[in-house]
Amino acid sequence: MKIYHKAEIQKLLSLQTVLDYIEEGFVMYSKKEAMVPHEAILMFEKPAGECHIKWGYAKRGKYYLIKVASGFFENPEKGLPSRNSLMLLFERETGMTVCVLLDEGYLTDLRSGAAGCVAAMYLAPRKVDCIGIIGTGNQAYFQLRMLQFATSCREAMIWGRDPSKAQKFCENRDLKSFHMHVAESIDQLASKCNLIVTTTSSSVPLLFASQIRKGTHITAVGADLPIKQELDPEIFAKADRVVVDSRVECAEIGDVAYALKAGVIKSEKMQELGEVILNPSLRRTSDDEITVVDLSGLAALDLQIAIAAYERLSNEVV
Amino acid sequence: MKIYHKAEIQKLLSLQTVLDYIEEGFVMYSKKEAMVPHEAILMFEKPAGECHIKWGYAKRGKYYLIKVASGFFENPEKGLPSRNSLMLLFERETGMTVCVLLDEGYLTDLRSGAAGCVAAMYLAPRKVDCIGIIGTGNQAYFQLRMLQFATSCREAMIWGRDPSKAQKFCENRDLKSFHMHVAESIDQLASKCNLIVTTTSSSVPLLFASQIRKGTHITAVGADLPIKQELDPEIFAKADRVVVDSRVECAEIGDVAYALKAGVIKSEKMQELGEVILNPSLRRTSDDEITVVDLSGLAALDLQIAIAAYERLSNEVV
Repeated sequence: MKIYHKAEIQKLLSLQTVLDYIEEGFVMYSKKEAMVPHEAILMFEKPAGECHIKWGYAKRGKYYLIKVASGFFENPEKGLPSRNSLMLLFERETGMTVCVLLDEGYLTDLRSGAAGCVAAMYLAPRKVDCIGIIGTGNQAYFQLRMLQFATSCREAMIWGRDPSKAQKFCENRDLKSFHMHVAESIDQLASKCNLIVTTTSSSVPLLFASQIRKGTHITAVGADLPIKQELDPEIFAKADRVVVDSRVECAEIGDVAYALKAGVIKSEKMQELGEVILNPSLRRTSDDEITVVDLSGLAALDLQIAIAAYERLSNEVV
Repeated sequence: MKIYHKAEIQKLLSLQTVLDYIEEGFVMYSKKEAMVPHEAILMFEKPAGECHIKWGYAKRGKYYLIKVASGFFENPEKGLPSRNSLMLLFERETGMTVCVLLDEGYLTDLRSGAAGCVAAMYLAPRKVDCIGIIGTGNQAYFQLRMLQFATSCREAMIWGRDPSKAQKFCENRDLKSFHMHVAESIDQLASKCNLIVTTTSSSVPLLFASQIRKGTHITAVGADLPIKQELDPEIFAKADRVVVDSRVECAEIGDVAYALKAGVIKSEKMQELGEVILNPSLRRTSDDEITVVDLSGLAALDLQIAIAAYERLSNEVV
């Protein structure tokens, strides 16, 4: 059994490598070949904290995964990171432990970024004028970083509630291949950008149907709990294509759930991203279409990125 | 974060040390201070296998535990052990990973053995004539090994379906402090022994009410799935005291569940071992009483033995 730490995972697992694995994760999920039951959650009080346990495997795969991810939001006061995570990979045919990935949440961040990239690869307009990122946190970074593989556009505009955080985000050296701009408002961002990613922890809509340009693609990744919401439900009515990672999950959590519950759209309007990957007729057919992808976070992607990390690290192939 | 392997766990964690932790586990569970939800189970086909994921913590404790235990029954054909297990211990207040215990199932075996010992400490007759062990597997070994701390009796009688396995069991050097005898039949064993432990994977009763001597204590540890059964339900009717590790679990699985479903006893007759530890009036009041303890396997005990292992190993105190 091997143990890998965050630093070597970051060093040896190239960003582009993971895209094939993540794409396969979406397909596997939509073909119902991924056995990924609901996660278990442990909630703690005094101090408040939570621990999420996910597990799953692919019917025809070599491994099964158990992922443990925690959030303890008073940790920064103690000089500790608020989030922590590890993944355990086991042999599907023997149960033997293959590896422990002490990734501290890096692989989860990366898989979400890669998921956003895959969404854009299949649904964004051919010509992206400017990438708009709403939010300035960790996931904003991973989304933008990974979008380099989905589009040749290198103009990026960032909006954050705190403009100083948006400014600091723009100075990140890992993003220096982009021309970074701070948006004065979401309105400005939406008027300039036709590829927009929302990455906030908002519980009220930030982006509205009236702001969306013709031909815009939106990926919503922030709303991963029932109380979270980033998109005006009318966006889904206005959109030509509504795509989710999981029909089942997105009926319960995230922005699509609000639109469904409000009766703004019917569930038949949703396609799964795995289906869009498999079936070109489900993709955008013109540069004028508005497309929206709502991602809830699939355990199948955790499985896939753990496999990507293990296969790369064990061979030390970059 | 520390990683401990089976060999150092076996070397540094003394058997007697764990008894206090296990006793505390029973008490904590019965006082409803242990948060131990139902386990998750992943089932595999071709080859058949299963993976059990348990998690939990004590309300006032320092840690939370995640345990992963697998069983792949074709593994021995591949030269691999059929069972495997590891435990992860995290800080309750921060979520930081404390240690990974790569115990390969040793700690689970040991906690079950310790649980049987605690049951006997509180319920066995003062004078044990002979210890009877039904079954010759791993758990038979751990039960007998740990009973050295519950009684000064060093006479032991073993019954196995395969007499050659029973003979081999008797030759185990780790059990040399006992005078070991192979029983010709369960009838013979029950007539000689007044402390009996059943450790088989039987799905039909092996030990019957008519065979039980006055004053006998029985601990049933084998039946850990709904289809498993070792004791004639009438034993519970005949018994003066019926004790379980968990009312909730034992109403569903194990020998007591059969007795309850058949209406042979009422649920009011059951006491939890944690209650017996806390309340001396629930223990045996004469050497003639028949007592039965049915153990389903508490995640609270997994938590406690992981803590025992970590606290001992991290201080290297034996």
